[in-house]
Amino acid sequence: MKTVGYAAHSADAELVPYHFERRDLRSNDVAIEILYCGVCHSDLHTVNGDWGPQPYPLVPGHEIVGVVQSVGPDVKNYKVGDRVAVGCMVDSCLECDQCHHHEEQFCRNGMTPTYGAPDRQTGEITQGGYSKHIVVREEFVLSIPDNMDISKAAPILCAGITTFSPLRTWNVTKGTRVGVIGLGGLGHMAVKLAVAMGAEVTAISRSKNKEKEAIEMGAKGILASGDADAMAAAASSFDVIIDTVPVKHDVSMYASLLDIDGTIVIVGQVGPLDELMSIPFVMGRRRVAGSLIGGIKETQEVLDFCAEHNVYPDCEMIKMDEINSAFERLAQGDMAHRFVIDMSSLAAE
Amino acid sequence: MKTVGYAAHSADAELVPYHFERRDLRSNDVAIEILYCGVCHSDLHTVNGDWGPQPYPLVPGHEIVGVVQSVGPDVKNYKVGDRVAVGCMVDSCLECDQCHHHEEQFCRNGMTPTYGAPDRQTGEITQGGYSKHIVVREEFVLSIPDNMDISKAAPILCAGITTFSPLRTWNVTKGTRVGVIGLGGLGHMAVKLAVAMGAEVTAISRSKNKEKEAIEMGAKGILASGDADAMAAAASSFDVIIDTVPVKHDVSMYASLLDIDGTIVIVGQVGPLDELMSIPFVMGRRRVAGSLIGGIKETQEVLDFCAEHNVYPDCEMIKMDEINSAFERLAQGDMAHRFVIDMSSLAAE
Repeated sequence: MKTVGYAAHSADAELVPYHFERRDLRSNDVAIEILYCGVCHSDLHTVNGDWGPQPYPLVPGHEIVGVVQSVGPDVKNYKVGDRVAVGCMVDSCLECDQCHHHEEQFCRNGMTPTYGAPDRQTGEITQGGYSKHIVVREEFVLSIPDNMDISKAAPILCAGITTFSPLRTWNVTKGTRVGVIGLGGLGHMAVKLAVAMGAEVTAISRSKNKEKEAIEMGAKGILASGDADAMAAAASSFDVIIDTVPVKHDVSMYASLLDIDGTIVIVGQVGPLDELMSIPFVMGRRRVAGSLIGGIKETQEVLDFCAEHNVYPDCEMIKMDEINSAFERLAQGDMAHRFVIDMSSLAAE
Repeated sequence: MKTVGYAAHSADAELVPYHFERRDLRSNDVAIEILYCGVCHSDLHTVNGDWGPQPYPLVPGHEIVGVVQSVGPDVKNYKVGDRVAVGCMVDSCLECDQCHHHEEQFCRNGMTPTYGAPDRQTGEITQGGYSKHIVVREEFVLSIPDNMDISKAAPILCAGITTFSPLRTWNVTKGTRVGVIGLGGLGHMAVKLAVAMGAEVTAISRSKNKEKEAIEMGAKGILASGDADAMAAAASSFDVIIDTVPVKHDVSMYASLLDIDGTIVIVGQVGPLDELMSIPFVMGRRRVAGSLIGGIKETQEVLDFCAEHNVYPDCEMIKMDEINSAFERLAQGDMAHRFVIDMSSLAAE
């Protein structure tokens, strides 16, 4: 199938229109017409080569929503016209213990990322959602609930599941005291999801500048990490902290905010953090953990949860040809919580 | 009560004989004649002032076993002649949630360490077990099981509970794959305890020098952390790692030894660790945690467990007046797994 997208041709290059082929449908494949695609900070990191060399040309995008255009003969759960989604993975072995436990993100044989990775059968490089169409095996296609506003759903596929999964893993429920460090793409979703789970949520940010916004999302307020007195007063007051800070930083300074046995979960920074101070961890059996997106079953759960609880990311809609300035604004931190590309703005030609 | 012990009179001084008073028995107090006291690395750190200024003269020692000499009128569970023990704590508020949950080590109002801390009622500084006698409120006295060899029991009170507690907290049981980094006082107890729990235990050490010793303790062998090939081959092969390394070190290099959802527990170093690399944690939902001794109930459990499973620390018995050379050997790492002071070597005068 011929399609068109926006690709980077090198680490330094801007994204430009790119005509390419999607594979012919295999028996278990779903062909999707993409309506919207979210812009994740990791798209920028990946195309820039920040996380290692990439196979260019590369079409990023792993927060994908659209409608089914055609299906292979063995597809059971989707039919033409269904509203569907694709997240950060498009394949895994489906045979290992992790896949059997619905944790395909931890597939022992390595899951296949939505873009920039070799297809398990042909070795062809996967291409992401900044494009008109995508072809994905049925097992990695999600269903968009009927009552969901599809124009705002895309960021749930990465920012949503990335914060939903640790909230579930660490048993956040009614009354759990949750801190969320950072109020960007991941952070604002963490706040909204934890609030919808019934948690008592506090945003943690350098200043109180965004407090009104945080309160509108359901948070009790902002704890200013730059205010030493406020930080001391908040000692031992959280059960779980979701740390969305995407750069090298000091995790230990937040540890004493955790109550005994509390956990701070790193979902933002992929790389080095500052020296770890063991004392707050030892003295309160506190923990620091990492978390990576979530499995396919859990990704469906977050979509269903968001539809049920009317939780949506704050999206700023952009046109496909605005992606390079959006990347620039993202790099500078000058952004809405999440950019979403309206794929109808990309001429099919 | 008059007693005698060995005290440091300043951070630089050697320990010397020190005559002092133990408090008169309160109604719920137990007076204990100390038979043996273990020598913990933290005794050395504390008297040297490594962890902050101390109230000198200071008698260290928190691995204490002995026999009951007298009891206050309200003491219910102990009588003269009973074999008893005292660990790292001699009091706590007993009113907060942590105390109610048998986690006195995390008392909200601060537990009272066995030495160097103000008594909750008089403010008098507590003095430890390098002495002939100690007076402790009943709730912080442990019972030595009948079939336990009391001469080897002392190190269970700190090295034992410090490793037993995280093994319990992280659900180590038959078949759990446990790694133990370091084979000193804490490490060799972690190996023996985990083996007795039915775990598959591997010691992790810079070299295989101590492999025979580790195997004799029940470990499968030693994984040499200096052997890059062996480390790579051991990726994802542990459920829990107990990290007993008592100095600043790199925790992240051990993280990828953990399987998905595995935890590395810091029990050795109290202070800074190297920069934390988030990738192995994020990519496998791995965790690093701290753990601090254990509560009184759990300390009784480890004593009972050791008696039942015939688990004893490897002790090198010393006389009281050998303590300064023992400290020197401890500082240089030239030591048996644990020194134990035979208190009969200290003349009562």
